Amino acid sequence: MKIAVINPNATESMTRKIAVAARAAAASGVTIEARTGIGAPASIEGHHDEAMAVPALLAQVREAEAAGVDGIVVACFDDPGIGACRELATGPVIGICEAAVKAASMIATSFTVVTTLPRSVPIIEEMVRRYGLSHQCRRVRSAAIPVLALEEPGSNARFLVRDEILRAVEEDRCEAVVLGCAGMSDLARWLSEETGVPVIDGVTTATKFVEALVGAGLKTSKIGAYAAPNPK
Amino acid sequence: MKIAVINPNATESMTRKIAVAARAAAASGVTIEARTGIGAPASIEGHHDEAMAVPALLAQVREAEAAGVDGIVVACFDDPGIGACRELATGPVIGICEAAVKAASMIATSFTVVTTLPRSVPIIEEMVRRYGLSHQCRRVRSAAIPVLALEEPGSNARFLVRDEILRAVEEDRCEAVVLGCAGMSDLARWLSEETGVPVIDGVTTATKFVEALVGAGLKTSKIGAYAAPNPK
Amino acid sequence: MKIAVINPNATESMTRKIAVAARAAAASGVTIEARTGIGAPASIEGHHDEAMAVPALLAQVREAEAAGVDGIVVACFDDPGIGACRELATGPVIGICEAAVKAASMIATSFTVVTTLPRSVPIIEEMVRRYGLSHQCRRVRSAAIPVLALEEPGSNARFLVRDEILRAVEEDRCEAVVLGCAGMSDLARWLSEETGVPVIDGVTTATKFVEALVGAGLKTSKIGAYAAPNPK
Amino acid sequence: MKIAVINPNATESMTRKIAVAARAAAASGVTIEARTGIGAPASIEGHHDEAMAVPALLAQVREAEAAGVDGIVVACFDDPGIGACRELATGPVIGICEAAVKAASMIATSFTVVTTLPRSVPIIEEMVRRYGLSHQCRRVRSAAIPVLALEEPGSNARFLVRDEILRAVEEDRCEAVVLGCAGMSDLARWLSEETGVPVIDGVTTATKFVEALVGAGLKTSKIGAYAAPNPK
Amino acid sequence: MKIAVINPNATESMTRKIAVAARAAAASGVTIEARTGIGAPASIEGHHDEAMAVPALLAQVREAEAAGVDGIVVACFDDPGIGACRELATGPVIGICEAAVKAASMIATSFTVVTTLPRSVPIIEEMVRRYGLSHQCRRVRSAAIPVLALEEPGSNARFLVRDEILRAVEEDRCEAVVLGCAGMSDLARWLSEETGVPVIDGVTTATKFVEALVGAGLKTSKIGAYAAPNPK
Amino acid sequence: MKIAVINPNATESMTRKIAVAARAAAASGVTIEARTGIGAPASIEGHHDEAMAVPALLAQVREAEAAGVDGIVVACFDDPGIGACRELATGPVIGICEAAVKAASMIATSFTVVTTLPRSVPIIEEMVRRYGLSHQCRRVRSAAIPVLALEEPGSNARFLVRDEILRAVEEDRCEAVVLGCAGMSDLARWLSEETGVPVIDGVTTATKFVEALVGAGLKTSKIGAYAAPNPK
Repeated sequence: MKIAVINPNATESMTRKIAVAARAAAASGVTIEARTGIGAPASIEGHHDEAMAVPALLAQVREAEAAGVDGIVVACFDDPGIGACRELATGPVIGICEAAVKAASMIATSFTVVTTLPRSVPIIEEMVRRYGLSHQCRRVRSAAIPVLALEEPGSNARFLVRDEILRAVEEDRCEAVVLGCAGMSDLARWLSEETGVPVIDGVTTATKFVEALVGAGLKTSKIGAYAAPNPK
Repeated sequence: MKIAVINPNATESMTRKIAVAARAAAASGVTIEARTGIGAPASIEGHHDEAMAVPALLAQVREAEAAGVDGIVVACFDDPGIGACRELATGPVIGICEAAVKAASMIATSFTVVTTLPRSVPIIEEMVRRYGLSHQCRRVRSAAIPVLALEEPGSNARFLVRDEILRAVEEDRCEAVVLGCAGMSDLARWLSEETGVPVIDGVTTATKFVEALVGAGLKTSKIGAYAAPNPK
Repeated sequence: MKIAVINPNATESMTRKIAVAARAAAASGVTIEARTGIGAPASIEGHHDEAMAVPALLAQVREAEAAGVDGIVVACFDDPGIGACRELATGPVIGICEAAVKAASMIATSFTVVTTLPRSVPIIEEMVRRYGLSHQCRRVRSAAIPVLALEEPGSNARFLVRDEILRAVEEDRCEAVVLGCAGMSDLARWLSEETGVPVIDGVTTATKFVEALVGAGLKTSKIGAYAAPNPK
Repeated sequence: MKIAVINPNATESMTRKIAVAARAAAASGVTIEARTGIGAPASIEGHHDEAMAVPALLAQVREAEAAGVDGIVVACFDDPGIGACRELATGPVIGICEAAVKAASMIATSFTVVTTLPRSVPIIEEMVRRYGLSHQCRRVRSAAIPVLALEEPGSNARFLVRDEILRAVEEDRCEAVVLGCAGMSDLARWLSEETGVPVIDGVTTATKFVEALVGAGLKTSKIGAYAAPNPK
Repeated sequence: MKIAVINPNATESMTRKIAVAARAAAASGVTIEARTGIGAPASIEGHHDEAMAVPALLAQVREAEAAGVDGIVVACFDDPGIGACRELATGPVIGICEAAVKAASMIATSFTVVTTLPRSVPIIEEMVRRYGLSHQCRRVRSAAIPVLALEEPGSNARFLVRDEILRAVEEDRCEAVVLGCAGMSDLARWLSEETGVPVIDGVTTATKFVEALVGAGLKTSKIGAYAAPNPK
Repeated sequence: MKIAVINPNATESMTRKIAVAARAAAASGVTIEARTGIGAPASIEGHHDEAMAVPALLAQVREAEAAGVDGIVVACFDDPGIGACRELATGPVIGICEAAVKAASMIATSFTVVTTLPRSVPIIEEMVRRYGLSHQCRRVRSAAIPVLALEEPGSNARFLVRDEILRAVEEDRCEAVVLGCAGMSDLARWLSEETGVPVIDGVTTATKFVEALVGAGLKTSKIGAYAAPNPK
């Protein structure tokens, strides 16, 4: 099985980190093909960056399809362009927000999301509502760090994330925590050990859910909204 | 007051039709600046077309801002890239779906949307839910016509739309009908006369709502999700 | 165009203030006809006052209709008797709560309402839910002032409202604030300057939205719940 | 125990019918004090009639309170002025719509409401949503009869109601039916026998629920929205 | 009329306390038949205990039915096995959570639930959502006491409950409080006097609501999900 | 990795069928341990059967835990006792309804569930609502067949299911179909081929999702509602 894991932003170091997480999660026999949004913004911080990243993402989806992948992970927590990706794809496509919050809903009665910037909070709240999980989401919090701070060696970003998780457990009475940024995928295990609460990384869970859907023989439905784009 | 009305697809004849509707609606003293999504798909039929149209739309928003517009209408019923446009804009930005369904909610207890293609139905249902009006939306229906059929002289598209509206009134017990495509903006009056039900055009209502918000002194909030994009 | 702006309570000073706000908002060529709920309670503070104010409000609607108005604003934040007004009216009718929260939803992802008395909080929460905007409403707060304190020269009411707005921005992470009382309409601009957040006045927005709906050629739907009352 | 059952419209024959239903339902030792909305519309068919009926209803509530009743039933399916009544009342107040749909939710997983006129359908849908039971309400249907047709001897209204119930069972797959008008209270038993489905009358259930709340020692909460009206 | 009040756990002292509350509430002429879940867990603290208690509860329902009861109260705040009980029962069956929160919704615009253990909080939140009352429920709180602490003479449990109620009134701005455990039924009156807020006991309200439904001639609907179990 | 797949009813032929589906789905290196609800009802048709099956299910969960399984599938579409199982389990536990509808939500914008008996329809509707997916669920339908008809050689049950799926595609405009019974797990592929719509089997998807969660290093959260049962 071959899964494309696409980082929709242009930052290669983030793609490498995401690839590490996806490969660590992948079952034996599953090949992870990591892809970068060439020409996209360096990080996706808000609606504008997200919108500007989608064409490059769709180009990667087309290439991945041409290369015969079985399924696709979109590795940005804003789940950019998922509907469009699904129109282009044969196999399943899942964004890391959808994967992570649905995973959380399977192992806990409630969860809190901890993301990077405050401006992403309403975007994530809206996604959680779209996925039908507002009643299980205690709160969406931000650790008030720029996305790329997670890439800087020696940054204290990981401690800020940890502290926000500890506040979430204390104040929100949540039973699990979802990491709200692909750039946090290397921190999940450490954060879980530090805080004692299940900490869920979207790259890992999305990779596993695509594996699962492919393994279950499921492909994106082509009889409605996700049919191939109409020719122009 | 100057309002940019942006047709996010590349079809100039549609832009002209939209401009006619917007100018007919505009108050005296309001200038309508019609813009086209240069390089965008010829029509927006589904998630993929929508995603591919957004960068050209954002370019138009930047130009319009530079030209000093007071507010912006995005004249495609999928409300593409609204959040991104709002990050770039100073004044209010509204999509024609949001405008039309909120107008409908002010003059009737329920409405049905009649759009072009079946594939757009779930997209519109999801938007109506996002705008919080599912409880007033009886149904989203499609007249099963391609978007550009509305541009063809001699096409029977208008009759198909009329017949679908008549079915909506009969079967859905709706009190108003929302036209689910910018390309129907020239038909609203005729359809209302033919069917006896208020028929709401998004281009008209969005133009008036932007006028209203500007006139009320309101601008897009810049203290949260709609702040200007972070510099990269 | 002629718009009736009806203050459903009996306090003339409040009608005058409301008229000032409506006239300041109205486009050139729009006449504002300010009306008072003669015989209604002096202020509307809760369900009882609201219910007792409606017959006088409906009498004003009948008179306004007879005088040929094009649309009607009901200038009390409890949106009293809106359904009944719509049955009597030909043109659009909108209450200032509905107008303000829908305007807020167009310029921000979230808002908080700041009203006068604590007892109005659950009433407003219920209205926001009815209008489908609970997911965008962070909180309904009260500044703990009686409605008529806003009419007293030298009252510190405006400072209490400002302080509550500052708390809302800090604690609720809201992107806009809606003023929850018609008697605050003269404060919107000052409050926005003091707090740095868009502050939305319902009298202003309702006037503009009625203008917008009339300008769009929309009237209250008469084929269902808002048909003229059945003769007895 | 003394319970006031108030018919908010002015039709005495309807009050008598309602009193019969309430007395048939009342436990031994419970006195039913039937009251009529003197000066109110002859029937409540829509928002306007409802609004015009409320002041007379509130006058009856005040009188009933002065007479020392323990609780109050508002016997019109639009649940007019319930919040205002609760502000005036010491004991519990319940409308027959709220009572009937909450009773239905206790004996069946789903129900359909059958009311008189089509114009009441959206009003009832909105109330069901306010009471939080939309997910258990299959549909609100109208038998297309005026309210007072139920008062005419020899009318075929009861058969039209029965036929609508049979359609509800067949088409809606509902497990219970709620009668959507106080004027149907004498028909519940017959309709249930004819159709084989539990048929719920609001006058009966509201009377029993008020008895229940009084018997449980519960009064209307006075620490918030239902506090006594502010003095003017 | 004969009502079975079933304590689904095995603790007889709790059954006795529940019986006292039910008998104090019952109308004259109503016989309360108190039953204990023989062989069930000693207390129901979480999903597992609840699940293990249901077979014994169903055995009690079968016995009660054989003994000809008119209705049944399930006296545990987790409302265990209600659907199953309704399949076995002829008359109405109600759990004390459903009864209490629906009663609260009739006398106040909002309520907070105060239960025993933190682990029950998400279970109750989910039930409140199922009953459609999330919008009226300010919060579900725990007093952090084990269920059986309420049975110990000299325990300070009642003071912990009182203090949590006082916090609820202060912080949640609730208008009523629902006691989230059958073992608190003897405390309702004292807690209401101490705190000044209506305090609602589920055993009392469920008993009265079953009386009400039976008195209204209503039985559990047998035409759908609550039909008698299929023979095996 | 070792996964227990527990058939909560007592019918061994159904366990064998379920085991075949689970093993066909399992990745290499995953052992499926099929278990039967010894002493449970022969089929689970409604709330009563479900409740009576849970203790045997929990016994199997305890045994499976003792045997060191990594995760658990509960292979009945009513998702019986999931909360209780999660309290007992270390690893993830998922029911086949939750798995199937969440899988459907990842590959289609809408789905319809086709189950066996009409009495299961409201139960499944309620579960879909609990899982937050009502807005994506077009309808829950029944093919009007008893559960064990699916076990009878030569039964026409499969054709009835196929015909119901064809009606779902036609009438509900759904983009995917979820099979609403574990006993249909052998039919998914054939039904998909016959109908041209993705047909989703819960046993398969639940097996894959448990694999995915285990593979992602996730266990059931033990810090709240799913903590181990309190000792008695």
